[in-house]
Amino acid sequence: MYKTITSSQNPIIKNIQLLDSKSRERRKQGLFVVEGKREISMAFKGGYQFQTILFCPKIFPETTFSKFVKKVYPKPECIALSSDLYKKIAYRSSTEGIIGIAKTKSLHLDDIQFSKKNPLILVAEAPEKPGNIGALLRTADAAKLDAVIIANPKTDMYNPNIIRSSLGCVFTNAIASGTTDEIISFLKRNNISIYCAALQGSVSYHLADYTQSTAIVVGTEATGLSENWLAESTKNILIPMQGEIDSMNVSVAAGILIFEAKRQRNFL
Amino acid sequence: MYKTITSSQNPIIKNIQLLDSKSRERRKQGLFVVEGKREISMAFKGGYQFQTILFCPKIFPETTFSKFVKKVYPKPECIALSSDLYKKIAYRSSTEGIIGIAKTKSLHLDDIQFSKKNPLILVAEAPEKPGNIGALLRTADAAKLDAVIIANPKTDMYNPNIIRSSLGCVFTNAIASGTTDEIISFLKRNNISIYCAALQGSVSYHLADYTQSTAIVVGTEATGLSENWLAESTKNILIPMQGEIDSMNVSVAAGILIFEAKRQRNFL
Repeated sequence: MYKTITSSQNPIIKNIQLLDSKSRERRKQGLFVVEGKREISMAFKGGYQFQTILFCPKIFPETTFSKFVKKVYPKPECIALSSDLYKKIAYRSSTEGIIGIAKTKSLHLDDIQFSKKNPLILVAEAPEKPGNIGALLRTADAAKLDAVIIANPKTDMYNPNIIRSSLGCVFTNAIASGTTDEIISFLKRNNISIYCAALQGSVSYHLADYTQSTAIVVGTEATGLSENWLAESTKNILIPMQGEIDSMNVSVAAGILIFEAKRQRNFL
Repeated sequence: MYKTITSSQNPIIKNIQLLDSKSRERRKQGLFVVEGKREISMAFKGGYQFQTILFCPKIFPETTFSKFVKKVYPKPECIALSSDLYKKIAYRSSTEGIIGIAKTKSLHLDDIQFSKKNPLILVAEAPEKPGNIGALLRTADAAKLDAVIIANPKTDMYNPNIIRSSLGCVFTNAIASGTTDEIISFLKRNNISIYCAALQGSVSYHLADYTQSTAIVVGTEATGLSENWLAESTKNILIPMQGEIDSMNVSVAAGILIFEAKRQRNFL
């Protein structure tokens, strides 16, 4: 039997709502909210520790829940919620039935550890839409990139929309963030070539060699990459645009570039 | 000087709202609504004919407008709108200042004409989100695909969300729709190989040869492709998923497949 909460005045409930809506609180408390079975599983796989996991027995039966958290270590506090209360705090109010409070991880550049001699990295500068960041993270997970680095992020990575649109891939990737200058010096220090997706002085992306240590760097659809990136670029690469439109969706473009690099590396 | 409309009871205004919201009306009248300078330009490029173009002089100055429509043939009826009325009918109420009523085109399979001996086609089965269809169409335009065919569409292609998210690429691609069976027999009739993105009995996508007449066929993220496609597939192809997630965003996956085909064809 689990402890049950039914009051919306309970401090845990109030804190979930706070963490869900305020980036500042997430930073201050070092905690964030994850909703959904798949997303929470991905956080387990990514080695995230949970302080509390709450479930709604009407949607997520107690026996299934007990099995789901059985092997989780360290053991989080587990609490049952009434349906009304679950509906009140959950985004997908009738389908998942599970929500957790987890501890954030350091996203500092120097905490990235490469297990390979020739890492393949994605850098995205100031991506705007959580949906695009989510799609980038799904692609990065599928390609098992060695790191994803966000330059000058507009939001923290534990934003609920990023967690949701990445289907939890925000947890399974090695992620870091920093300013453009910090990232450029990190890449140089690690002898990682910088391939900037840009129109200026570029070669077609499929003619560059990505088999050595490589960072693929993409900017926003609206303004592209900032000057600093272009100044420090090893080579600018472009995807030939043969129709009428002058830009692709940033997550599609990144996918094409990343998988060309994977192909050249024989998917190793 | 242009005729000016100020009343929201004007039949043209009422019809714009009707066409914007009802797929049935678009089909019945053979008309649809396009908002925005870029999108309308793309429709001009795609050879669409406009019945009416309305502009809001406060946002889109009259002299600029006159230049914009100068070479359009056949000449559409051009009407000025008060700001209040423009705000009422426009989605991006303060930025574009231009909206048009255009004639739909036939999207019948048999109206597709191939100018190449070995066309490259994208087929998407029952794509759900307008945002994904939009991204697919942007990628298809950039790759100058010979056709984009939508199997069992859930909405018509002149849905305002598709026009918007495709940035007008719905007009510049050769588009058709039909049932899965109709499309399969069309592809066979035209000796076009069918490469289905699927997990079952698949080879890694980069090992298939796309230099002959090729259709790349993608399904939904949730359920993949229907049985009929798999039964008629020339070869099933997959993108290796090396992380924790079991699917990519459909428009990212399609982008990777399409551009591998383009690479093999030397972007010709």
